[in-house]
Amino acid sequence: MNDMYYMDLALMLAAVAEAQTSPNPVVGAVVVKNNEVVGMAAHLKAGTHHAEVHALNMAGENAAGSTIYVTLEPCNHFGKTPPCTMAIINAGVKKVIVATLDSNPKVSGAGVTKLRSAGIEVEVGIGGVQAEKLNATYFYFMNHKLPFVTLKQAITLDGKIATVFGRNENITGKEVQKDVHQARARTDAILVGVGTVLKDDPLLTNRYAESNKQPVRIILDTHLRTPLKAKVVTDQTTQTWIVVGSDVTTSQIAEFARPNVVIIQLATRTIVIRDVLEELARRNIVTLYVEGGQRINTSFIHSGLVNEMITYIAPKLVGDQAGIGMLADLNVKSMNDAVQLKLQQVKQIGEVIKMTSIVGCG
Amino acid sequence: MNDMYYMDLALMLAAVAEAQTSPNPVVGAVVVKNNEVVGMAAHLKAGTHHAEVHALNMAGENAAGSTIYVTLEPCNHFGKTPPCTMAIINAGVKKVIVATLDSNPKVSGAGVTKLRSAGIEVEVGIGGVQAEKLNATYFYFMNHKLPFVTLKQAITLDGKIATVFGRNENITGKEVQKDVHQARARTDAILVGVGTVLKDDPLLTNRYAESNKQPVRIILDTHLRTPLKAKVVTDQTTQTWIVVGSDVTTSQIAEFARPNVVIIQLATRTIVIRDVLEELARRNIVTLYVEGGQRINTSFIHSGLVNEMITYIAPKLVGDQAGIGMLADLNVKSMNDAVQLKLQQVKQIGEVIKMTSIVGCG
Amino acid sequence: MNDMYYMDLALMLAAVAEAQTSPNPVVGAVVVKNNEVVGMAAHLKAGTHHAEVHALNMAGENAAGSTIYVTLEPCNHFGKTPPCTMAIINAGVKKVIVATLDSNPKVSGAGVTKLRSAGIEVEVGIGGVQAEKLNATYFYFMNHKLPFVTLKQAITLDGKIATVFGRNENITGKEVQKDVHQARARTDAILVGVGTVLKDDPLLTNRYAESNKQPVRIILDTHLRTPLKAKVVTDQTTQTWIVVGSDVTTSQIAEFARPNVVIIQLATRTIVIRDVLEELARRNIVTLYVEGGQRINTSFIHSGLVNEMITYIAPKLVGDQAGIGMLADLNVKSMNDAVQLKLQQVKQIGEVIKMTSIVGCG
Amino acid sequence: MNDMYYMDLALMLAAVAEAQTSPNPVVGAVVVKNNEVVGMAAHLKAGTHHAEVHALNMAGENAAGSTIYVTLEPCNHFGKTPPCTMAIINAGVKKVIVATLDSNPKVSGAGVTKLRSAGIEVEVGIGGVQAEKLNATYFYFMNHKLPFVTLKQAITLDGKIATVFGRNENITGKEVQKDVHQARARTDAILVGVGTVLKDDPLLTNRYAESNKQPVRIILDTHLRTPLKAKVVTDQTTQTWIVVGSDVTTSQIAEFARPNVVIIQLATRTIVIRDVLEELARRNIVTLYVEGGQRINTSFIHSGLVNEMITYIAPKLVGDQAGIGMLADLNVKSMNDAVQLKLQQVKQIGEVIKMTSIVGCG
Ligand SMILES: [Zn+2]
Ligand SMILES: [Zn+2]
Ligand SMILES: [Zn+2]
Ligand SMILES: [Zn+2]
Repeated sequence: MNDMYYMDLALMLAAVAEAQTSPNPVVGAVVVKNNEVVGMAAHLKAGTHHAEVHALNMAGENAAGSTIYVTLEPCNHFGKTPPCTMAIINAGVKKVIVATLDSNPKVSGAGVTKLRSAGIEVEVGIGGVQAEKLNATYFYFMNHKLPFVTLKQAITLDGKIATVFGRNENITGKEVQKDVHQARARTDAILVGVGTVLKDDPLLTNRYAESNKQPVRIILDTHLRTPLKAKVVTDQTTQTWIVVGSDVTTSQIAEFARPNVVIIQLATRTIVIRDVLEELARRNIVTLYVEGGQRINTSFIHSGLVNEMITYIAPKLVGDQAGIGMLADLNVKSMNDAVQLKLQQVKQIGEVIKMTSIVGCG
Repeated sequence: MNDMYYMDLALMLAAVAEAQTSPNPVVGAVVVKNNEVVGMAAHLKAGTHHAEVHALNMAGENAAGSTIYVTLEPCNHFGKTPPCTMAIINAGVKKVIVATLDSNPKVSGAGVTKLRSAGIEVEVGIGGVQAEKLNATYFYFMNHKLPFVTLKQAITLDGKIATVFGRNENITGKEVQKDVHQARARTDAILVGVGTVLKDDPLLTNRYAESNKQPVRIILDTHLRTPLKAKVVTDQTTQTWIVVGSDVTTSQIAEFARPNVVIIQLATRTIVIRDVLEELARRNIVTLYVEGGQRINTSFIHSGLVNEMITYIAPKLVGDQAGIGMLADLNVKSMNDAVQLKLQQVKQIGEVIKMTSIVGCG
Repeated sequence: MNDMYYMDLALMLAAVAEAQTSPNPVVGAVVVKNNEVVGMAAHLKAGTHHAEVHALNMAGENAAGSTIYVTLEPCNHFGKTPPCTMAIINAGVKKVIVATLDSNPKVSGAGVTKLRSAGIEVEVGIGGVQAEKLNATYFYFMNHKLPFVTLKQAITLDGKIATVFGRNENITGKEVQKDVHQARARTDAILVGVGTVLKDDPLLTNRYAESNKQPVRIILDTHLRTPLKAKVVTDQTTQTWIVVGSDVTTSQIAEFARPNVVIIQLATRTIVIRDVLEELARRNIVTLYVEGGQRINTSFIHSGLVNEMITYIAPKLVGDQAGIGMLADLNVKSMNDAVQLKLQQVKQIGEVIKMTSIVGCG
Repeated sequence: MNDMYYMDLALMLAAVAEAQTSPNPVVGAVVVKNNEVVGMAAHLKAGTHHAEVHALNMAGENAAGSTIYVTLEPCNHFGKTPPCTMAIINAGVKKVIVATLDSNPKVSGAGVTKLRSAGIEVEVGIGGVQAEKLNATYFYFMNHKLPFVTLKQAITLDGKIATVFGRNENITGKEVQKDVHQARARTDAILVGVGTVLKDDPLLTNRYAESNKQPVRIILDTHLRTPLKAKVVTDQTTQTWIVVGSDVTTSQIAEFARPNVVIIQLATRTIVIRDVLEELARRNIVTLYVEGGQRINTSFIHSGLVNEMITYIAPKLVGDQAGIGMLADLNVKSMNDAVQLKLQQVKQIGEVIKMTSIVGCG
């Protein structure tokens, strides 16, 4: 088979491990000898073997004189596991075909140089586009030291996320809820404002996805107004991190001393979105799924740090009188300086339209 | 060929005349003898021959002993043209296959009875579903004595139709404008509120569709506030009908005496949507394309007389501060009593989502 | 709508009359005024009105200042009907758009010249490719004074058309038989050798197509060995023409004096395929469907006058011992000088493969 | 993800090893814990680890309490590798989901019983259809002790495999040759009659497939007429087995003493196809690709032991005179007792039709 066939196989294996390897990227590897696959694997969990090591183990002595296809440049540093470059060299691999270089400063280019210095032929680029798409969030996290932010809202056709008097209103129904919980199962953390906690007292866990993986719950709560008996505090299924401003006193914080609750106090009296995101990145949050309310949506849009927006549009109307719009003040003067979105995908889930877009570059 | 083949041909011929025959329905007819088409035609314009007559003329003496396929029950009354039942009988047609009975009280069932009494075999139903869909607006108009109302709005993703200070803002760009003008070319009349005339002074004509057919312009203007030098008054391309309340004086009306302007004065001080629609139906407006603003959208939704809604969703955000929502007060208390929509079609026109839905039965 | 929309409509109308107009071509015409269709028709039967005349009649006075789309250059000579150029000029048509010029020597280019001399704007070429494909057989007939010949055989996978001892064997089953009878309904004549008549005594009529149109039956029978009680002689459903060589005596011929039987005696002792085809063309046979046996297939392939070959390949094997091959001696020495075929279409009818190819230009 | 997702993944991994594991079946395995893939692999080569062992190794301690999806019942006997049932039990796997039971008498049902006796929950059947299709040849080989026989021929449209005087004629061109060599790369052995060796002196190796895997060459040569300087003898790329009848003397055989040549002498004076196939099965030939000539095709069809037939139909004609039919005498009397074929697939490779069918049950 040609190179693209084996790289496609490696990319497919990598994709199997999607949402299992954070904060590591997903990587696939295929070892080929005399046009036969003698080893194939993927990196499955942070802290366990990298894809290259699994595949070489499977190949055994067949690895000698083989060609290995890898979706990401082999690592060349001692992390939790020994460097893959050494494993490749020791196994007597003849040629390495890499889809894309690693944007991780520690590795980028080093792996290729190491392998070539050991006399191994290295080709870079085959399947590069898919490989980059596969780890888009990881590369963004590595290059910007910020989590990849998805802003999600469920709205009525006339743009409302709730009604003034409504409580914990479900706008979009069962099927969309399952879609949202799939997203919760695949993201490192989800985030709401304290307004949402006070109004709806949501549980904010993944209950309907096939996988029962739980995201960290993050509440932006400048003055620590989160009630002690709020579900996000009492429920132990997963951790809750509450981000507070500098005015909050240690005694207030002390009241929240529970195993599953972490108070993150910023240095400023009010919460600046960029500061929150930098802190979350330091705590290895690679992907963040922001589930609003209106003030959170607005501040995130203002911050310019939203990578992707997912909007569920329900076929119903509530009118300006009763409805709360998805966004408050974007200091827009006229239609010309509206915030532009670049449409990525439109699909239908039952009666609801699911629109994926990129913010800020229409 | 089998019956469905010939009826499909008749339906296709009828569809060619779409938007050309108002207030008549579109009708296609195919005359077949010994498995050969000896005549085929459609009704092309109100006041000209019906499809059956054209097709029988084309068949000449071949019509004798033939079978005629018609998408709508042949008429049996003296309108602008002699009844088609007579033309069929005189031509010596042996069998008539009708897709669907006419819902027009003057005709319904009478044609079939007349033909059978003349010894002609009549079959009803083949292709009935498509035939009804083809004349959905005509059948609604005939059964309810009301125009088929399409409510159209172009909105931002967060549901705004304009910004507070914006003038004549184009939300959705060239491609959608062409789509809207195609709709204007196919509808009998378009309608806006005087608010839109005062704010944007729109021309309200079809300038971008291939066909240069123009709709009648209808302005709901309770107190006749439409400026005399408004484009809808000065422009002669097509008629403008201004609907006013009973308070408006004859002298006010007299000022608008122009060949292309008609003032329709209702009996009530304020305008009731149902009254407007009944009056328009009496003036043979079969299809009405309502282009808003906010108060017109709201009152039409309240009236419950909207047959279809077309929403163009532009990928941009303006926020509650600067934006005017597509609907004002729908006296909705909570999400549960929101107005439900039944999604009919979702498609993409460039970067804009075009959503077609039916109001009121989600 | 744009020009291509109206020309496509004209092409579709023309196609409705396929296999109804021989020896005339199929022609469609659409009259358009202010972007509305005011007339549309096709030529439906040799001897009846041409498409242009039907369409102009339907348009009535709307034809004045209109544009007419025609799939074939309007005729300019007095045939069975007055010339269409006059009808177009008299109707006050402003512009004529012609898909393709007529290859008929009497007309080619004359119609366009006539119309332009009358001050009418003429455009040629839109939809030309489809228009030519639509009348491929007619254009071939006009240009070569020969019928368009389709050579059809039903064979086993190992190339046999019958078994040595078999009688009237059906190789390919019901569904293919229907396909063959559809072809018989659309062709002017079908042809077999006297060998097939003697071996199978076939009826050679169309019994299974929806249309009950019958082809003329042509038997190549150098020495008039066709039995008087053969079905092709006794059956009156359609005519049978028996082509004989010069040796056949008048008394032999006299025995076949029946209303539905015609003896065509060539000037040569043996039958030359080209002579047969020229004679059939003189008798207005535009399309000829040759249904074999082996000697007929072989002589037609040798003649080089086969335009199209249709081969039904049945999923069965009989072996060289028992089978009669579809072709006898093609004086081929080795694989290199085999007769090449150009594959046009391959489709499956039930378990049988139907292959359409062009002979002689692989 | 649900069971079908993981079993589809296992089936996909198994398919990667197609044509690499003979005489073993292809098998895929996926280990899942808390809805995450912790191990995935396939059996890659006869004599190396089975899929289950590779996957459990990859899972490490994560295997404890996991569910393993396997496309074929785990083995429970000591072959070249320890039984997979033990590996599964020792790893503490909680549940085993098996697509299909093994038809290998040594294993069938034993693995499931062993696992259940060790308290492991076992489910059988998910993805069973695809799993069986994946190993159709292996299951046939196991159940009948015969190789899965594919009969391949390239023929002209009129059923000829060669011309009388032609030498080593290529009927179907480059693209088909590549397709044939792909098949040679995936089959254990290819077979021709000595007639073909004498007439064309073919090399019978895989030269154009991506993989350079070579099949064993088998020549049916009752009287050992294969020339010593024939390419199949002199060429060392792969083994040649010549099957001879009992009349051939030891001295004749001695002449062929070469490392890459094996003479297989049957007990009967003439070669019986079933005996040849049973002997090949004893020598672990699971898949046999028979490439004719006419006498070999005929005898294999007569034997009734052809599992699949692949026919390349080239668009060319040679006629009975010059051509050699693909089959000689099938003692068929009339079309009714022709050998029936069941069409499986028809596709086009350039100008050639490739037809796959099953012999004998049309
Ligand atoms: Zn690594
Ligand atoms: Zn009528
Ligand atoms: Zn004409
Ligand atoms: Zn095993």
